Amino acid sequence: MEIKVHTREKDYSILLERGALYQVKDYVDAKRRVFIVTDSLVPKEYLSILQKQFPNAKSFVFESGEKNKNLSTYAEILKYMLEAQLDRKDVVIALGGGVVGDLSGFAAATYMRGIDYINIPTTVLSQIDSSIGGKTAVDFEGVKNSVGAFHQPSLVIIDPDTLKTLPKRQIRNGLAEAVKMGMTGDEKLFAIFEKEDYMDHMEEIIERSLRYKKRIVEEDEKETGIRRVLNFGHTYGHAYESVMDGRYLHGECVGMGMMRVVKEESVKERLQSVLLRLELPLSCDADQEEVYKRIVNDKKSVGDAVNIIQVNQIGKAVTEVWKKEEIKEALGV
Amino acid sequence: MEIKVHTREKDYSILLERGALYQVKDYVDAKRRVFIVTDSLVPKEYLSILQKQFPNAKSFVFESGEKNKNLSTYAEILKYMLEAQLDRKDVVIALGGGVVGDLSGFAAATYMRGIDYINIPTTVLSQIDSSIGGKTAVDFEGVKNSVGAFHQPSLVIIDPDTLKTLPKRQIRNGLAEAVKMGMTGDEKLFAIFEKEDYMDHMEEIIERSLRYKKRIVEEDEKETGIRRVLNFGHTYGHAYESVMDGRYLHGECVGMGMMRVVKEESVKERLQSVLLRLELPLSCDADQEEVYKRIVNDKKSVGDAVNIIQVNQIGKAVTEVWKKEEIKEALGV
Repeated sequence: MEIKVHTREKDYSILLERGALYQVKDYVDAKRRVFIVTDSLVPKEYLSILQKQFPNAKSFVFESGEKNKNLSTYAEILKYMLEAQLDRKDVVIALGGGVVGDLSGFAAATYMRGIDYINIPTTVLSQIDSSIGGKTAVDFEGVKNSVGAFHQPSLVIIDPDTLKTLPKRQIRNGLAEAVKMGMTGDEKLFAIFEKEDYMDHMEEIIERSLRYKKRIVEEDEKETGIRRVLNFGHTYGHAYESVMDGRYLHGECVGMGMMRVVKEESVKERLQSVLLRLELPLSCDADQEEVYKRIVNDKKSVGDAVNIIQVNQIGKAVTEVWKKEEIKEALGV
Repeated sequence: MEIKVHTREKDYSILLERGALYQVKDYVDAKRRVFIVTDSLVPKEYLSILQKQFPNAKSFVFESGEKNKNLSTYAEILKYMLEAQLDRKDVVIALGGGVVGDLSGFAAATYMRGIDYINIPTTVLSQIDSSIGGKTAVDFEGVKNSVGAFHQPSLVIIDPDTLKTLPKRQIRNGLAEAVKMGMTGDEKLFAIFEKEDYMDHMEEIIERSLRYKKRIVEEDEKETGIRRVLNFGHTYGHAYESVMDGRYLHGECVGMGMMRVVKEESVKERLQSVLLRLELPLSCDADQEEVYKRIVNDKKSVGDAVNIIQVNQIGKAVTEVWKKEEIKEALGV
């Protein structure tokens, strides 16, 4: 199945198909040099599958983890790209989760002022979310994604078979973002989590999430307006992530973040039951004062107030402006 | 005088006016934070003129020189931008020559995935050439401009009065690029150098150069086609620059590079007499074997051949494909 994405920078396709990992070669002109970037957590088997298709490709494997999503790993990738004598017509392939995509996307965005990259996300989180939208970045001086670029991939290849090797917790972690997208814009997507066994509906979940995100991204490529609805649950979520310092995964924190924000009782109940079905946490024992501080110091805060994405009806998001007291209140402090 | 530039990324204006340095404030919304980047070679007086207009602006001064156009100065600028708490709506002002523009443009291109920057070029070379076109970059692992981004400025402010403090050699160095633009696309611009005292026609030279470059850049924003004519003289020029390791300036090397390439006698004579009037070197004692090696190893070489921009008639450029023997021949080795 193919989804076409139109952006001002370029048009590209998302290929969603079991076994697609074996077909990457069909999409790359044989004359182009290929440079593969992946990390130590991605099963070696996947890299081998690519290497068989591109026997002359150089590859770079870095140690997995958000802590390595920094300027020095970035510089290392660039160095190997130069050594591999990549020119502007060559192509980078990112194989892995969000960290791999962010890092190699940023390297591709800036090597010789930008070369193509193909994104092959291998986690739920990256397949439904970070693989499209063109956001690339590294963390810098303790600030997440503070250095990066908008650089659209030339192709996204999603092979749901790669999820088979993914730990359960990582699967649920990724699905939290699908729940978010259901909440803010696709009630049918949300309903899958309420009624069905998500493992049986993985492809449908990925497809619906991608179609939703594609609509948003096409409308607002550089996040100046409507795209902000994707931040639902993220204001509190990012604060939890930072305060709990790695104890909770991104999607888990987004789940808890949505729970803090929603006020409409019926919506909150439905969200809660979905999070429970997904075995995602509803709350944690974070120091709430600390969480509050991170929120008001966030780069998205505007003076005394913070823009909060709110859902009062499943499938529909609105923007609210919360004053400091309201932010505190939602934390129960 | 205002020149409007239209690119796919954004539209922006080039303001060309004596005393424009005193009017920058008129073009920046008072609500925006301002971050000024400049280097140790730019007269302190110019920075003061800006600081008086933006009393709350933070500024960063780095040690001048191409050797500092690297990832570590880039990271330093980003660090200070974070400390100054710049957000996506704020603005970077680049005050200085090409190195300042390249470095701060790249920092602006990637800080929070891209914020606005205003370019205030203070050298002939940057006023007529590097200040428009949206090319930003740093040098990396010995390869010039190998890491960077296309990021159009939101405004370019050119104050010809800033050239008064510029050493003569730097003025002529910059004018070599204007000669190049005349050769490839504007015979009237070229004729100024043949007939007039260039110091009396500086504004006209800047304006004609900008209008020519604007046309090229609008047509080919990311250098995939026609923009390559701007490389006239640069294949040999870059090789000279690198072999002579700083003994000759960029424009001087471009002048020598044009002399190597042109074959049509009448054109060569006119070029030579213009370079002599500008007191620019026609050739140097570089190790020609070394120059040859750099050319064939250049990233723009395609297998056994190199694309060379040629001028057989003043004001008109064509592309030629030169085999290795031809490249050698032009060097007289």
